[in-house]
Amino acid sequence: MFNLFSLKGGLNNVEGFFCDGVNVGMKVNDNGDGDVAFIRSDVPCDITARFTSNKFQAAPIKHYKKYPKNFKTNFILMNAKNANAMTGEKGIEDIDSIFKELKKHHNLENPIMSSTGVIGYRLNQEKITSAFSKFDYSAKNSDKTARSIMTTDRFKKELCFKIELDDGSSFTIAAICKGAGMINPAMATMLCFITTNADIPKADMEELLNEATEGSFNRISVDGDTSTNDTIMLLANKVSGAYNKEAFREALNKITFELAMMILKDGEGANKLVAFEVNGAVSEEEARKASIALSNSLLVKTALFGEDPNWGRIASTIGASGVECDDTKLTIHYDNLLIYSNEQRELDQEQEEKAYKVMKNSSFKVTCNLGLGDGSYTSYGCDLSYDYVKINAEYRT
Amino acid sequence: MFNLFSLKGGLNNVEGFFCDGVNVGMKVNDNGDGDVAFIRSDVPCDITARFTSNKFQAAPIKHYKKYPKNFKTNFILMNAKNANAMTGEKGIEDIDSIFKELKKHHNLENPIMSSTGVIGYRLNQEKITSAFSKFDYSAKNSDKTARSIMTTDRFKKELCFKIELDDGSSFTIAAICKGAGMINPAMATMLCFITTNADIPKADMEELLNEATEGSFNRISVDGDTSTNDTIMLLANKVSGAYNKEAFREALNKITFELAMMILKDGEGANKLVAFEVNGAVSEEEARKASIALSNSLLVKTALFGEDPNWGRIASTIGASGVECDDTKLTIHYDNLLIYSNEQRELDQEQEEKAYKVMKNSSFKVTCNLGLGDGSYTSYGCDLSYDYVKINAEYRT
Repeated sequence: MFNLFSLKGGLNNVEGFFCDGVNVGMKVNDNGDGDVAFIRSDVPCDITARFTSNKFQAAPIKHYKKYPKNFKTNFILMNAKNANAMTGEKGIEDIDSIFKELKKHHNLENPIMSSTGVIGYRLNQEKITSAFSKFDYSAKNSDKTARSIMTTDRFKKELCFKIELDDGSSFTIAAICKGAGMINPAMATMLCFITTNADIPKADMEELLNEATEGSFNRISVDGDTSTNDTIMLLANKVSGAYNKEAFREALNKITFELAMMILKDGEGANKLVAFEVNGAVSEEEARKASIALSNSLLVKTALFGEDPNWGRIASTIGASGVECDDTKLTIHYDNLLIYSNEQRELDQEQEEKAYKVMKNSSFKVTCNLGLGDGSYTSYGCDLSYDYVKINAEYRT
Repeated sequence: MFNLFSLKGGLNNVEGFFCDGVNVGMKVNDNGDGDVAFIRSDVPCDITARFTSNKFQAAPIKHYKKYPKNFKTNFILMNAKNANAMTGEKGIEDIDSIFKELKKHHNLENPIMSSTGVIGYRLNQEKITSAFSKFDYSAKNSDKTARSIMTTDRFKKELCFKIELDDGSSFTIAAICKGAGMINPAMATMLCFITTNADIPKADMEELLNEATEGSFNRISVDGDTSTNDTIMLLANKVSGAYNKEAFREALNKITFELAMMILKDGEGANKLVAFEVNGAVSEEEARKASIALSNSLLVKTALFGEDPNWGRIASTIGASGVECDDTKLTIHYDNLLIYSNEQRELDQEQEEKAYKVMKNSSFKVTCNLGLGDGSYTSYGCDLSYDYVKINAEYRT
């Protein structure tokens, strides 16, 4: 057994890790947010990462993949406003020459870069390297680091948990992340950096990060797109000497799930967070297909925004998803309210009003039971508002 | 050889077919549009139809499918505002009892019903049957019929072509259709009724309607959703005695393609019509996958609305579509303007301005050459505007 506590702040709580962010003029109106940041460790860390499934992976991801398996690193450099994607070999060379400059300021072991922003432009090396004399390399400024990787995010995202084991030992796990649009189940569009001082074996890092990603970032949808830069990294410096696999699993699942919900709440122009639970499908894969079709559907998203208890769009989306289904066996609930069944196909005035009340909430659950088997899956989506269109029509300019 | 002429109007031009539409109060502010309409033929017609791939097919589709193969019909009854979908067995019984009433006004042979509108409500039989004494059964009122099936459509859609064959014989083909939202390649969300007096064999009707649908309605995307009611029907009364397969193929392909473009131009809140041509893919299926990903992508659609020459979103969407691709072999053109190639990854000011000019047009073509093989496919999409969200948030109410 173990106890898990939430700590204020984020990366600052983990011993041996340092971080800072500064503004070098890429974000012009940054409201105090930075645009270049780092996370570093006193001792070289084990690292495991998951990247976008997009075939056009950005230069920083290609750069990462050049390191040998089981490499250790002591430095991650991050920037916003420019994704360094679709920049070809030059984009990778730019990273090397940035690190050549950074070496003059700090010792580096297999440094990693991570970028987010607009696709198709080479990094402005002059601006980025100008950060190196501004950084406080012994700072533990998680707040500024988290804010420096924000793009269309409305709020910064950081979390930390402390885990106390029965033998009195303890470890900490912390994370920052960014993400607001282009969130699709197949790796959300996001950067996420998780640090821990737990003494976790490399094999467990891989296994547990895969599991945590599948249970969190792979289940959220803002607009069904998948970017060139999606990255989630777990760094372990192991200095606490403490570890318990089940405790770490729970903490990592919790931290990634909560961050995923924060991304969804920050979905571009989003006002509502909705869980789409599909059960009774003939298989888990079919449940997943239907659930993700619901969280991606424009017609469902606009009905959520309009707070219209229009279950027809839910049913139609399930029918269009290609999964096995039967309208005489289907039931649909909004939270605990039965909205559709074979026996109750039309809502009366009272039921409409009850449904409308559920939909007024800033978060609720849509449960669709297909009544055919044991397959079950839940994904998470948000509404689509005027603001989504506005943000994305104007993003680059 | 043959000559193909466009005729004014629509269904009114085809001998032996009659049609009319009336308002029975389901559309409250109908601006002169009706909400119940019919198309009938003096002689029973051969009919072939294609329906939605949605698993929850609406009651009228289930009703149609109860007829034996190769049945003939002389009557199609249509209504807007109510889809008669997800209404169970009762929804089918309602159609039978509506036809029982209609029989008192007109002789019926295997009558067909076709509905569009909100899902999940039973038809108001009293209102619909009240149309039967209002119809002019000998009218050729294509305009009113086309307007009676409109839902969120901003304009009615009707077309007619006359084909003169070399031997001096001729036939006519005409169509009305509705559709504006929920348009997805996998059968657009729409109703389409095509009539002809050509002496076309039943087997050709099947073959050519499949081909025409694949080249038109299956290539357009407004929002990637697929409804419960999508229907396209071809009726042939054969009374002209004239037929030529190639001429009919060309006329049918032309009429369905032009109607598909009309649907797209009428896409909910849409201002731009964009062709997404993908070639150089390793197979036609891969080209199709990438092309449809582009016409469905929210980020591409909002960039079109914002008139932002942001090719990064085009590239990212291709990368996310799962097709084989390589950023060193890819080229992207907007009309004839090269926007991206391995050698030209960043646009200079002059190129940006040229690209911006192309995007100001109300229609243009995005061509992506993957540089890998011979696979080619074109689909058609539109932009996503504030109005799409407004229309779909408020649709039911």
